[in-house]
Amino acid sequence: CPCPLPSGDTPLSRLVRRLLSARRSLDLCLFSFSCPQLARAVQLLHRRGVRVRLVTDSQYMGLHGSQIGRLRHAGIQVRHDQHSGYMHHKFAIVDRKMLITGSLNWTAQAIQSNRENVLVVEDAEYVKAFQDEFERIWEEYNPANYSFF
Amino acid sequence: CPCPLPSGDTPLSRLVRRLLSARRSLDLCLFSFSCPQLARAVQLLHRRGVRVRLVTDSQYMGLHGSQIGRLRHAGIQVRHDQHSGYMHHKFAIVDRKMLITGSLNWTAQAIQSNRENVLVVEDAEYVKAFQDEFERIWEEYNPANYSFF
Repeated sequence: CPCPLPSGDTPLSRLVRRLLSARRSLDLCLFSFSCPQLARAVQLLHRRGVRVRLVTDSQYMGLHGSQIGRLRHAGIQVRHDQHSGYMHHKFAIVDRKMLITGSLNWTAQAIQSNRENVLVVEDAEYVKAFQDEFERIWEEYNPANYSFF
Repeated sequence: CPCPLPSGDTPLSRLVRRLLSARRSLDLCLFSFSCPQLARAVQLLHRRGVRVRLVTDSQYMGLHGSQIGRLRHAGIQVRHDQHSGYMHHKFAIVDRKMLITGSLNWTAQAIQSNRENVLVVEDAEYVKAFQDEFERIWEEYNPANYSFF
């Protein structure tokens, strides 16, 4: 594979280690997802039997370099918005108890070139607010609710 | 003025109220800043004598609708990056003790149309990490350090 998991102690390797700590579930709400290493970590969790759910933005999911098709192909459940505004969140929830959120889009450009922040929070109050938003979006973007004109 | 401060209880009005609680300082680190109501709140604080410092992205500060020129014209100190990657943070620190951060760019489009999150945090540990990053960036982007080729 051309994109091994990152090693050493870099911001990316620390983020990957947090993700790989998931034992039961990983809920992802990501505007843009084109970083191959992060996609590989998510696939690994899926293969280990962790329940992965991914919500993304309909306008960005088809862009060049997007990992969404690859993740869907691997059998991961993906849902996306249906409206013209952006689904601009960029957060992950590990095992419903660790929230990873910030300014960082999961793209190689952001990781390599930008000034970004990522917060890792385990306070139940914050985690619950984001988990609730995730469940709301997950239902709202259920394909069963699509409207066609 | 065509853009009064927002009233009622909306996410924007709540954000503005948090900002207007500043008594001594407001440190802003914003990728994109084109929302007129938020710019008006910042100008109001500046006029009240609150020390406002603003760091922004050099590629976005000149875009149509940007409020950066207006804020500079009002006498607010603005600094920006000098490199090709984005200064992609979107956070504010009120009185060095309240951190406001999330996915939200300070643009009308984001506020009106996107799915976004904004965290308000007063835990000293989190505030300090962002305050330190602000001070680092503020020094790094000091015009005295510009290099010309």
